[in-house]
Amino acid sequence: MPRPKSNDKPAKTPPGKIMLSEIQEQPEAIARLLDREYLPVWEMAKSWRETPPRFIFIAARGTSDHAALFAKYLFETMNGIPVGLASPSIASIYRAKVNMEGALIVGISQSGEAADVISVLQSAKRAGVDTLAITNAGSSKLAAAAHQVILLHAHPEKAVAATKTFTNTLASLVLLSAAIGDNTRLLAQLQRVPQLIEAVIKDAAQIQEKVERFRYLEECVVLGRGYNLANSYELALKLRETCYVRAQAYASPDFLHGPIAILEKGYPVIAFANKGVTLFSVLDVILQAKARGAEVVVIGNAPEALASADVAFTVNVKQTVPEVISPLPAIVAGQFFSETLSVLKGIDPDKPRGLHKVTVTL
Amino acid sequence: MPRPKSNDKPAKTPPGKIMLSEIQEQPEAIARLLDREYLPVWEMAKSWRETPPRFIFIAARGTSDHAALFAKYLFETMNGIPVGLASPSIASIYRAKVNMEGALIVGISQSGEAADVISVLQSAKRAGVDTLAITNAGSSKLAAAAHQVILLHAHPEKAVAATKTFTNTLASLVLLSAAIGDNTRLLAQLQRVPQLIEAVIKDAAQIQEKVERFRYLEECVVLGRGYNLANSYELALKLRETCYVRAQAYASPDFLHGPIAILEKGYPVIAFANKGVTLFSVLDVILQAKARGAEVVVIGNAPEALASADVAFTVNVKQTVPEVISPLPAIVAGQFFSETLSVLKGIDPDKPRGLHKVTVTL
Repeated sequence: MPRPKSNDKPAKTPPGKIMLSEIQEQPEAIARLLDREYLPVWEMAKSWRETPPRFIFIAARGTSDHAALFAKYLFETMNGIPVGLASPSIASIYRAKVNMEGALIVGISQSGEAADVISVLQSAKRAGVDTLAITNAGSSKLAAAAHQVILLHAHPEKAVAATKTFTNTLASLVLLSAAIGDNTRLLAQLQRVPQLIEAVIKDAAQIQEKVERFRYLEECVVLGRGYNLANSYELALKLRETCYVRAQAYASPDFLHGPIAILEKGYPVIAFANKGVTLFSVLDVILQAKARGAEVVVIGNAPEALASADVAFTVNVKQTVPEVISPLPAIVAGQFFSETLSVLKGIDPDKPRGLHKVTVTL
Repeated sequence: MPRPKSNDKPAKTPPGKIMLSEIQEQPEAIARLLDREYLPVWEMAKSWRETPPRFIFIAARGTSDHAALFAKYLFETMNGIPVGLASPSIASIYRAKVNMEGALIVGISQSGEAADVISVLQSAKRAGVDTLAITNAGSSKLAAAAHQVILLHAHPEKAVAATKTFTNTLASLVLLSAAIGDNTRLLAQLQRVPQLIEAVIKDAAQIQEKVERFRYLEECVVLGRGYNLANSYELALKLRETCYVRAQAYASPDFLHGPIAILEKGYPVIAFANKGVTLFSVLDVILQAKARGAEVVVIGNAPEALASADVAFTVNVKQTVPEVISPLPAIVAGQFFSETLSVLKGIDPDKPRGLHKVTVTL
């Protein structure tokens, strides 16, 4: 029987502060990723620069699936490559033979242990289709199952709620998109992300001191669109996991298709509002929510949206932030919000009830 | 100025009974669809039988997007064709040029007026890519924008909450899958759907009499997997729209990745559990929910799951129902549940607050 491996090192952080510490590590973690993976990824993408994949299919669960949603906007808009999100059960349970000729299949799992994501890569590889694993665990089964691997270099993530592995996954996807498109402008934008996140961390008190108002928050919706839609799902998941808040994410137009009926006076609506071509759509839903008396919380860099909010969490308002990278600093503000609220509610954000770091999907 | 058109005919149904009446029309509506569209769809699919699309991209919002999720499982499993769900804003807002060579782009909208879905079809058609509209409105912009049209023949749907257009959309997708795959067995299974739904309607009292228990239901989760995952999203939307219940849908494995933390003693978990290869996964999450003291409500035909439920809504337990068509009768049980609960809560299910039948997405 193989000896169980352990990644545990003596903790430097006091108990109850692991998630907070991992949030603060993010600038360093992304800088490390870019430093270590820039050359390998540019080299890996050589053949895709010549002949781009016909389409990209991404298999992921939970937080990694939110990163996959970001990737859909990224590769379609920046690279013109259609992206589908794989339903892992189609390979693992239905055992369907899907014609993936010319595709690139990407599996994302920070632990590298998500069984059904591994199964998608294995069956694609057997069929002779290009496969790529994005993982924080270089010796994982996921890494072994793929032709190519992008390592996240986020160092072990110990809190149950993913923070630095999420932003490092987004950064690795932007790096891959830039490498496939030979897009040095996008690469330069990506290289600014550590300092943009550093600015959010320096300004964290601005977020933390406004959290008290939400001590008795029990439910909310979280809205976004385009590149920032993934953030809505990710923040809603953090709020559910670490604060037991019944948070539900929607793309702003989908929210208008039915769920808006739930709004009543004072109902909390959190919106990611960053400058860019989708901002008008988020502003539209903010105005409609305000017209119904909702309490509007805005996270982002768009002054119009921040000015119309009941509570505004400003992110990088003094910098110029291209929409494509705006989700990275903005979700960090959301992470601070969740972590602070969790502690305020008397919950241990590092160990929410009933959750394990690695979920094995049958 | 053009004279506004109206589809309104004198209502045969008393006010407050429109949704109920439309639920009951479903066997007839599906039979009409199959009768009118069987030959045109088989003819339309001739070239796809010879050369299947390399992949299918589907654009849809709201209820139609749930049908698109069903279509993903359907075309991948039955036809081996990869399916992606289009993010309409990538065409309508980001104006990205995505390489859709060899693809089939499907737009679904019962009203045919969803502006961003129309925009996806228009830009695909301009690029010379095959397009197909699935709509209940033959003279709509969506129908005009596509190379091919499948008409739903559901007759006008007047209640705000979609019922018969949802099941007719699922049926039209199964018809298309059978036509592409020359799958006469699947066609024969589809032809049984009207009688399976008829059986649910005859047995509706069984559902309605158990709804009183849920008079004060304020929130719940709705779970499913595979072909039945779309039903979870659809029932959650019906409960939000018509009952103002904060219902949240999850694929059963995704629920285990974090959201399960929300469970506490007595928390209501609704699960679709039909016989088939995904049943073990739904049973697994039912057992985990029960172990945490959740109240488990099961809708479906799987005896093991029904037996373990606190409240069981049985659907076609006496018939043999292939998993691929099981969502159609099962969602009808969910529609009865929503409509009955809405009335019990003193809400008008035909006119929930703040919703319009056609939502224009900017």
